[in-house]
Amino acid sequence: MKRLLPFDSFLPSLELVLMLISSLLRMLISAGTAIVTKDKAALWTDGRYFLQAEKQLNSSWKLMRAGNFGVPQASEWLTDVLAPGGRVGIDPFLFSYDAAEELKEVISKKNLELVYLYDLNLVDEIWKESRPKPPNKPIRVHDLKYAGIDVVSKLSSLRAELVAAGSSAIVISMLDEVAWLLNLRGSDVPHSPVMYAYLIVEIDAAKLFVDDSKVTSEVMYHLKKAGVELRPYDSILSEIRRLAAEGAHLWLDTSSVNAAIVETYKAACDKYLMNRGSRGKTKNKQYFESDSLPVGPSGVYMQSPVSLAKALKNPSELEGMQNSHLRDAAALAQFWCWLEEEIHKNMKLTEVDLADKLLEFRSKQDGFLDTSFDTISGSGANGAIIHYTPEAESCSVVDPNKLFLLDSGAQYVDGTTDITRTVHFGEPTAREKECFTCVLKGHIALDEAVFPENTPGFVLDAFARSALWKIGLDYRHGTGHGVGAALNVHEGPQSISFRYGNVTPLQKGMIVSNEPGYYEDHAFGIRIENLLCVQEINTPNRYGGIEYLGFEKLTFFPIQTKLVDLSLLSIEEMEWLNSYHSQVWEKVSPLLEGSARQWLWKNTRPITKQ
Amino acid sequence: MKRLLPFDSFLPSLELVLMLISSLLRMLISAGTAIVTKDKAALWTDGRYFLQAEKQLNSSWKLMRAGNFGVPQASEWLTDVLAPGGRVGIDPFLFSYDAAEELKEVISKKNLELVYLYDLNLVDEIWKESRPKPPNKPIRVHDLKYAGIDVVSKLSSLRAELVAAGSSAIVISMLDEVAWLLNLRGSDVPHSPVMYAYLIVEIDAAKLFVDDSKVTSEVMYHLKKAGVELRPYDSILSEIRRLAAEGAHLWLDTSSVNAAIVETYKAACDKYLMNRGSRGKTKNKQYFESDSLPVGPSGVYMQSPVSLAKALKNPSELEGMQNSHLRDAAALAQFWCWLEEEIHKNMKLTEVDLADKLLEFRSKQDGFLDTSFDTISGSGANGAIIHYTPEAESCSVVDPNKLFLLDSGAQYVDGTTDITRTVHFGEPTAREKECFTCVLKGHIALDEAVFPENTPGFVLDAFARSALWKIGLDYRHGTGHGVGAALNVHEGPQSISFRYGNVTPLQKGMIVSNEPGYYEDHAFGIRIENLLCVQEINTPNRYGGIEYLGFEKLTFFPIQTKLVDLSLLSIEEMEWLNSYHSQVWEKVSPLLEGSARQWLWKNTRPITKQ
Repeated sequence: MKRLLPFDSFLPSLELVLMLISSLLRMLISAGTAIVTKDKAALWTDGRYFLQAEKQLNSSWKLMRAGNFGVPQASEWLTDVLAPGGRVGIDPFLFSYDAAEELKEVISKKNLELVYLYDLNLVDEIWKESRPKPPNKPIRVHDLKYAGIDVVSKLSSLRAELVAAGSSAIVISMLDEVAWLLNLRGSDVPHSPVMYAYLIVEIDAAKLFVDDSKVTSEVMYHLKKAGVELRPYDSILSEIRRLAAEGAHLWLDTSSVNAAIVETYKAACDKYLMNRGSRGKTKNKQYFESDSLPVGPSGVYMQSPVSLAKALKNPSELEGMQNSHLRDAAALAQFWCWLEEEIHKNMKLTEVDLADKLLEFRSKQDGFLDTSFDTISGSGANGAIIHYTPEAESCSVVDPNKLFLLDSGAQYVDGTTDITRTVHFGEPTAREKECFTCVLKGHIALDEAVFPENTPGFVLDAFARSALWKIGLDYRHGTGHGVGAALNVHEGPQSISFRYGNVTPLQKGMIVSNEPGYYEDHAFGIRIENLLCVQEINTPNRYGGIEYLGFEKLTFFPIQTKLVDLSLLSIEEMEWLNSYHSQVWEKVSPLLEGSARQWLWKNTRPITKQ
Repeated sequence: MKRLLPFDSFLPSLELVLMLISSLLRMLISAGTAIVTKDKAALWTDGRYFLQAEKQLNSSWKLMRAGNFGVPQASEWLTDVLAPGGRVGIDPFLFSYDAAEELKEVISKKNLELVYLYDLNLVDEIWKESRPKPPNKPIRVHDLKYAGIDVVSKLSSLRAELVAAGSSAIVISMLDEVAWLLNLRGSDVPHSPVMYAYLIVEIDAAKLFVDDSKVTSEVMYHLKKAGVELRPYDSILSEIRRLAAEGAHLWLDTSSVNAAIVETYKAACDKYLMNRGSRGKTKNKQYFESDSLPVGPSGVYMQSPVSLAKALKNPSELEGMQNSHLRDAAALAQFWCWLEEEIHKNMKLTEVDLADKLLEFRSKQDGFLDTSFDTISGSGANGAIIHYTPEAESCSVVDPNKLFLLDSGAQYVDGTTDITRTVHFGEPTAREKECFTCVLKGHIALDEAVFPENTPGFVLDAFARSALWKIGLDYRHGTGHGVGAALNVHEGPQSISFRYGNVTPLQKGMIVSNEPGYYEDHAFGIRIENLLCVQEINTPNRYGGIEYLGFEKLTFFPIQTKLVDLSLLSIEEMEWLNSYHSQVWEKVSPLLEGSARQWLWKNTRPITKQ
C-alpha cells in the first residue's frame, strides 16, 4: 500500500483519469485498488488494512472499506463520479484480462472508455528515482528430491494437455505455476518463494521471460537440460505477436493472464486474419482448411491445467511437507515453552516481540527460508481481527489474562507450514471455554470427514460450523484453503468454504487447511488450524465402485486442553484429541530436548471425563 | 403409461412424426415420454417403471431406460433417427414452455421443426370412445380452520406481488398452487387433492377455468365471496388473447405454464405491436410512453410467487399437519401390531396384502381421504428398489427373515403424511444392523441440525450421509423434499439434496422430509423417514444478528431398536432415540387402546448401553 502514497502529492498535475490497482498481478498478496480522478482519490482495501489505511492516508484520500455495507465497488464509484464520455486509464500489465473486461463492461454503461496504458505507468513516472529497485536475488533450483518430478516430465505432461485441447502453446503467468513447472524457486515476493517471470510452453520449445541477472549458472544449466530458453522479461508482448503471426493457437487462462498479453494476442490474431483475408479474396474468402479446423491463430481460453497438476502433491512433495511440519512443530514447542516461562516471570512482551521470537526459533531449523505470511499475533480483542498484523509502534502487550491467538507459518526448503493455536496463560472464562470447545468440535468433525470422490470442498464446510451453529455462533471466513508444497501458502483450485461457487472436487494429494474459528468483537478471537492432505480411505465398503476420501494430518502440535470444556465434548471427540496428542508426542519429541521436550510431554497428556 | 399402448396398433397409418409426452402437465406424477415415428416407437421412463414397461410394451416398442448409462435423451434420439427437414409434432398443452423450447432448440440443430398441434391430440384421435372419461368428482372447499388464511387475503397478497413485479395479471397452472390459493381441494389426480384448472388473477378480477360440473353450489358461493368468476376450462387461450389485446403484462412462470398458453400470449403481443406499429407509423414508430414503460403487452417471466407462499405454512396448516400425523401414527401402530401377530402366527402375507391392510387401518381415521402416493412395501431385495410399487400378481410374500421397508402416507382433510420405517421380524444380521445404524445416525444428524437463516437445503445434505460415508456407503437419492399441507406430498421450492442447483434457503414454516437410506442391490433396502418443519431455534447467541433455524418433528412413530447396533451409536444419539420414543408414547398413546397401545409401549422403551 505504501507504493501508492507518494502519488498523492502529484494529484493536481494529472491530466488523465487514472486507475491503479495495487493488487498487482506481479505481486501475490492483494492489497487494494486506488482510483485517482482530476479532483478525487479513493483507496479500496479489505478489513485487514482498514486500521493501517486510516493511519497512513491523508485527508485528500477517501478510504473505501471494501465489503462493508453500502460501500460501492470501484467500477460503480467510477460510473458515479465521472461525467459520461470520460476515459479511464489502467496499466494493462496489472489487471487480469477478465478483471479488465468486467471493468470495461460496467463503465461502458455510463459511456466511459477504458484505456490501456501499455507504455506508461503513471505511478512509475511520479516515483522516478525514489522507486525501489526491482528485487534481484538469485533464483535457485528446487531439488528433485523435494520436487519429485523433473521438469522434462512436467513439460511433457503439459504438452499432452496442449495437444488434447487443440492448442499449440500456453502462456503461464501465475508465478507459483512457473516456479512449480520449472522446479525453480525465487525471492521476489515476501513469504512466497517465486520470481517475476512469464513462461511460454510450446509443443517443441519453452521460453522463460525473466531478468537474467537473477539466473545463476546452475539455474541456466538446469533450464537448458529441460530445453527451456531464456528471454528478457520485457520481450513478452513481442513474443506473443510473433506466435500469433505464426498461427499459434495460444492457451490463455484469462482469469490470471494479464490484459496486456491477451489484448496483444487478440489484436495480432485479427491482423493475421485481415492480411490473409485480403490475400485470399481472389479464391473465395476462406479462413478454414477443408477439415474445418481454423488455419489462422485462435485462442483457447480455459483454466490453466498447471493449477490442478500443482495442487495434486506427489509423494516427494508430501514427504517434504511432512518433514518440514515436524521441524516447524519443534520450533513452536521451543517458542511456547519459552513464552510460558516468560509469562510466568511476569515479563511484559508485545505481540511483535512474540512474532520476532517465534521467527528466531524457526530460523534455527534446517532448511528455513522465510515466514510464509505475516505472523498474526493477537492478544485479547486483537485476536478478533481476522487478519491482524501487529506493528511494533502500535501493538499490544500480551495480556496473560486474555486469550492469545497465533497464526503463523514458514517456508522451508522442503515445505510450507501454516498453523494457528489459541491459548490462555491464566484461567479462561466459561464463555471462552464454551466457544473454544465448539471451534474444536468443528475442527474435529472436518478432520474426521470421509466423503466420496468428486465432492467439492463446500460440501464439507458445514461440518466445521455445525457445533457453533447449535449455540448461534459462526465465523465469517472460509474453513480451508489450498497450500503449496514449498510454495505459496494460499493456492487453488480447491477450497473449503460456505461459498458454493467453487465446485472443484477435493482430490487425493491436495493440501487444505482446516481452520474454523470464532471471533467475539472487542473481546477475543479463537482459531484452531491444522493442514491436512486429502488421501484415500480404506473404507470397508466402496458403494458405487468409487473411492472414498478423507484427510491425513500434516500438522502435529498440541491443542491447549485447558481451554476444553469437557462437558461439551463427546467421548469420541475426547478420544480424537487424546489420539492426536499421542501422535504429536511420538512424532515431535525426538526432535526436542530439555525443557521444550518437557513442555511437549506436559501438553500431550491424555484428558479424561470425570 | 397404459394410455399410450392402444396407440401402438395404429402406427402404420401415421403421416406425421409425432411426439407425445405422458408426463402430462395435467397429471402430477411423471410417467414417461413416448415418441412415435413412421417406423419406430420408443418409450422413455425412469427406474420406477422399468419392470412394468418390460412387461407391458410389445416388441414394436423400444424401452429407453432414462438415466441409465448410454441411453440417449428423447431429443437426442429424435435428431438421430429423423432425416433433416422433418417435423416433430407435440401437444403444446402437455409441455411446459421451457421444456418445449429446449426440445425445439436441440432438434433445430438437425434442421428439424417443432410443430404445435393445438387442435388435435393424435392419441385422443385414436382412443376415441375407449378413452376414459375425464374425472368429474366434485370440488370441495378446504375449511378455513385448516387453510388458516382466507382466499381474499391470499389474492390480495398475490396482487401486491403482481404490482411490485410490474405485471397486471398472472396465469397459475400448477394445480396445487390453484388449490392452495383458492382454498379448494379436488379429486382429479390420484393421491393429490387437486382439480384440473387454470387460474388467472388480475389486479381487479380472478377467473377460474374449470369444468363447472365439478363446481358445487358451496364452492360457487365460496368463490363468489372472493370475487372469483368461473370460466370454461377450454376457454383459457381465448382469455389469454383477450388479455394481450387489452395490453396486459402477464406474469408467466415458463417452467410450469404450458407452451400453448405462452406461445398464444407471445403471438398476441406481437400482433398487438404490429397493429400499433402500422397505425403509429405517421407519428414516428413509438411503442413506449414518455416514461419509457412499455405501452403494449409484455410478459413478466419469473418463478410463480405462489410456490414460496404455499411452502411457508401458517399456524393453522401446521396444526392440521401435526394432528393428522398423530392419527396416522395411531393407524400405523394398529397396523404394525396386527402384522407382528400375523407373522408370529406364520401367516403368509404378500407386500400388497400389507399395503391393503395399512390402507384399511388408515381409512378408519378421522378425515382420511386417500393415500398420498402408491405404498412402497418391499420385502428383502424389493426394498432395494427405491420406488418399488408391488403389484398383486407379481409381488413377494413378506419374508420374516428379511428386512421389510414400508414407505407410505395419507391425505387427510387437515394434512398430508409421508413416513418410512424399516423393520426385521426375526434376527437381523450384523451387516443389516450396521447399515441401519449408519442410516439412523444420518437421520439424527439432520434432525438435530441448526443453521443460520439463508442456508439452502443442500448445505445440510452431507449431515445425513456422513456416517454412511465413513464406512464407504451412500444412497442415490436426495435426503428431503418439500411436502404440502393437505396437498401434494412432493412440492417445491425447497429440497435437501446432494444436487446443489437448488439454492432456495430453508425458511420458517417449510416442511421437508428427512429420509436417508441405504440400498444393497438384490439384498435389502433401508430408509428412515420423518417429516420435519423448519422453525426458529432459540439459540443462546445470535451471531450476525440473524435467526438460527432448526427442525421440529411432525412424525411420531417408533424406530425399531432391534436394528440398532448400540456399539456404533454415541451417547448423544442414544439419548436422541430415547427422547424421541418418549415423545412418541406421550403423543400417540392417548389415541390407542388394547393391543395396539401395548405394542406402542413395548416399542418406545428406552435403550441403554451395557
